[in-house]
Amino acid sequence: MKEQVIAEIHVYPFGTATTSLSRYIVACIDIVRQAQDISYQITAMETIIQGPLGRVLELAQKMHEVPFAMGVKRVVTSISIDDRRDKLITIDSKVKAVS
Amino acid sequence: MKEQVIAEIHVYPFGTATTSLSRYIVACIDIVRQAQDISYQITAMETIIQGPLGRVLELAQKMHEVPFAMGVKRVVTSISIDDRRDKLITIDSKVKAVS
Amino acid sequence: MKEQVIAEIHVYPFGTATTSLSRYIVACIDIVRQAQDISYQITAMETIIQGPLGRVLELAQKMHEVPFAMGVKRVVTSISIDDRRDKLITIDSKVKAVS
Amino acid sequence: MKEQVIAEIHVYPFGTATTSLSRYIVACIDIVRQAQDISYQITAMETIIQGPLGRVLELAQKMHEVPFAMGVKRVVTSISIDDRRDKLITIDSKVKAVS
Repeated sequence: MKEQVIAEIHVYPFGTATTSLSRYIVACIDIVRQAQDISYQITAMETIIQGPLGRVLELAQKMHEVPFAMGVKRVVTSISIDDRRDKLITIDSKVKAVS
Repeated sequence: MKEQVIAEIHVYPFGTATTSLSRYIVACIDIVRQAQDISYQITAMETIIQGPLGRVLELAQKMHEVPFAMGVKRVVTSISIDDRRDKLITIDSKVKAVS
Repeated sequence: MKEQVIAEIHVYPFGTATTSLSRYIVACIDIVRQAQDISYQITAMETIIQGPLGRVLELAQKMHEVPFAMGVKRVVTSISIDDRRDKLITIDSKVKAVS
Repeated sequence: MKEQVIAEIHVYPFGTATTSLSRYIVACIDIVRQAQDISYQITAMETIIQGPLGRVLELAQKMHEVPFAMGVKRVVTSISIDDRRDKLITIDSKVKAVS
């Protein structure tokens, strides 16, 4: 397997009429589901994805565009990338290491 | 159920000899496991906990102290709190809403 | 000087009518301005404060309550704490070290 | 001026011998200084940059590579992007709006 990073991505839309953000989050997660080369985990706080660094940034940028396409005028997106180059890490191996 | 927040907590120790951080993370997660009043989810990137705001901050502060007790001299801890007061949210309900 | 941590605090209100968040941020920063025992720096992205760990968490919790007091129903607050115990760090010393 | 985003970038190297991270941060900031098309602010916690979204992600990726080039084997990089499309925002305008 090629070098992989694990990234967590939060997409926050602002100025929405309601406090519920799930329809925006669902549409963001659809981007990840359609990316068949990417492993992912959905948590209560964010989407975690695993893949090559460039691909992960590309998907994060696509997710960031989703609320704008749905009419939102301001989005804050946070991406946190864990990149370890002395050892292959995966979403599964990281969870197992601490469980 | 009393008002609950969902929080994600990252504890990063610096100046450790090795790139592996799992023994520190395991010890931090032990704090959460021992807190029997708290629901939690372990992900590839962080620990997610659910409970009353004051209790969540108290546990985050305890987790932050763990690497120091293990000899680390610098720790960066990030806490992100999702607090919704028009509707009860839980770790489960948030994951279901976007799945 | 007693042990100090440096923390950055973001307070994000959701379900506001407008994309502008400045009136909420101004009210959050007022909490910090009134806390005369605390050094702070206002940046384009967040509020940075310096003080003892317990005091910093107490102020973060007060800032988190501000948008609720203004009628907001959902707030996400992120706190990131840099705590170094082998050497005193301050907002000024950290900026100087990298400038 | 073309559409701008404001982003904060944290680059955290792990498994370094010392708790001081400033030589890595200085080298990361050099990437931003050399990028003459980009406005930036250095704070006690991170680097804030302003520019078009694609350019900002490109610079963040370059900054992420810096500690690896210096021998580090694990890096966690966080990027938080504030993107407002109903109004031009700049580092200066954002700080003024809350001061």
